[in-house]
Amino acid sequence: MSTITVTTFKWVPPIIQGLVRDLRVRWALEEAGLAYTTHLIGPPDHQSAEYLRLQPFGQVPVYQENGLVLFESGAIVLHIAERSEALMPTERNARARTKTWMFAALNSVEQFAQMFTELDLFAAGQEWAKLRRPMLLAATTARLSKVTQWLDGREYLEDRFTAADLLMTTVLRTLRHSDLVTKNSTLHAYQHRCEARPAFQKALKDHMASFVANAPV
Amino acid sequence: MSTITVTTFKWVPPIIQGLVRDLRVRWALEEAGLAYTTHLIGPPDHQSAEYLRLQPFGQVPVYQENGLVLFESGAIVLHIAERSEALMPTERNARARTKTWMFAALNSVEQFAQMFTELDLFAAGQEWAKLRRPMLLAATTARLSKVTQWLDGREYLEDRFTAADLLMTTVLRTLRHSDLVTKNSTLHAYQHRCEARPAFQKALKDHMASFVANAPV
Repeated sequence: MSTITVTTFKWVPPIIQGLVRDLRVRWALEEAGLAYTTHLIGPPDHQSAEYLRLQPFGQVPVYQENGLVLFESGAIVLHIAERSEALMPTERNARARTKTWMFAALNSVEQFAQMFTELDLFAAGQEWAKLRRPMLLAATTARLSKVTQWLDGREYLEDRFTAADLLMTTVLRTLRHSDLVTKNSTLHAYQHRCEARPAFQKALKDHMASFVANAPV
Repeated sequence: MSTITVTTFKWVPPIIQGLVRDLRVRWALEEAGLAYTTHLIGPPDHQSAEYLRLQPFGQVPVYQENGLVLFESGAIVLHIAERSEALMPTERNARARTKTWMFAALNSVEQFAQMFTELDLFAAGQEWAKLRRPMLLAATTARLSKVTQWLDGREYLEDRFTAADLLMTTVLRTLRHSDLVTKNSTLHAYQHRCEARPAFQKALKDHMASFVANAPV
């Protein structure tokens, strides 16, 4: 019987609630039907020497299972997907394609979505951000348009829902402060389709619950 | 008998020669002892409808093998590593740890290294870049210091050379215009250790050869 523990933050500000990366891992575990417990940490514990031995970048989540310690949400989702047909087909080439899109979500799309969102949420008043924003908006829009073209006529990135859709959906979610997804009917429908899954709804509920329970007075 | 084809650019400007992502895939194939042929493309072919069906973001490399088409250098390196002990240990948990560091190289380090390098190489004269640079330098340095701390007393990210070191090395290479790696003895020695491998030297030689052969007159 495996015992899975996911370490994440006790509380984060509302502006990033629903975006912290433990959501990806919770969602994957729900899709795979794997039970887990959470270990909640709060600053400054995420920078302690002890924690950095588990997560060298001082981030969340950490995944622990019978002595195995993993970090990086993408790697953890892959680890879960490799043992669950709910997240990855069994056929060899289809598995390779799923992984291709997992990396694409995190390396070819998230990089832009995250830069754009961080600029808007955390640097909006700064002079460099005002000057930089138009170019970054154009670059992010260009990346999203490539995903849109690919999704044209498809329900999912590949033939069925996979861990790649899980990751791509969480990347699209980071743009929620903007209209970049909502004004794009293909992406908007895609995100909605993935978020309608019961496993996502359960994961989001649990993700939010700890922030409510631990909100500062 | 498998036939592997890697699609990459015929020529790129010297400032990015040695950094284009086919280098990762060539290196992985050399470590694994797998033969391959290259298919060289040049603008504007990378934005053709035909090419975007293979590589939705219009980038390189594309990996083709008996009908399987993969893109995203990280995913391709993983695909190769999964069948070669030269790039990934056989023990289950050690494999999961290798993948954790593969994602870390691309998602927790490359994102910063790439933003920093692109700013210096392509936006140095712009006002936003001057204002932005100190913050980005600090953020990139902070990430590198976490990798440095982890590597303290280690030769590789895990117990032996793996595909994660391959990816991390190529990420560190992107900072070659700066002194961020060279002034850091741990990182500098680590990069040197990985780049001294015959497989890397062969891959780099082949990567550069096509740029020399196809240089504009």
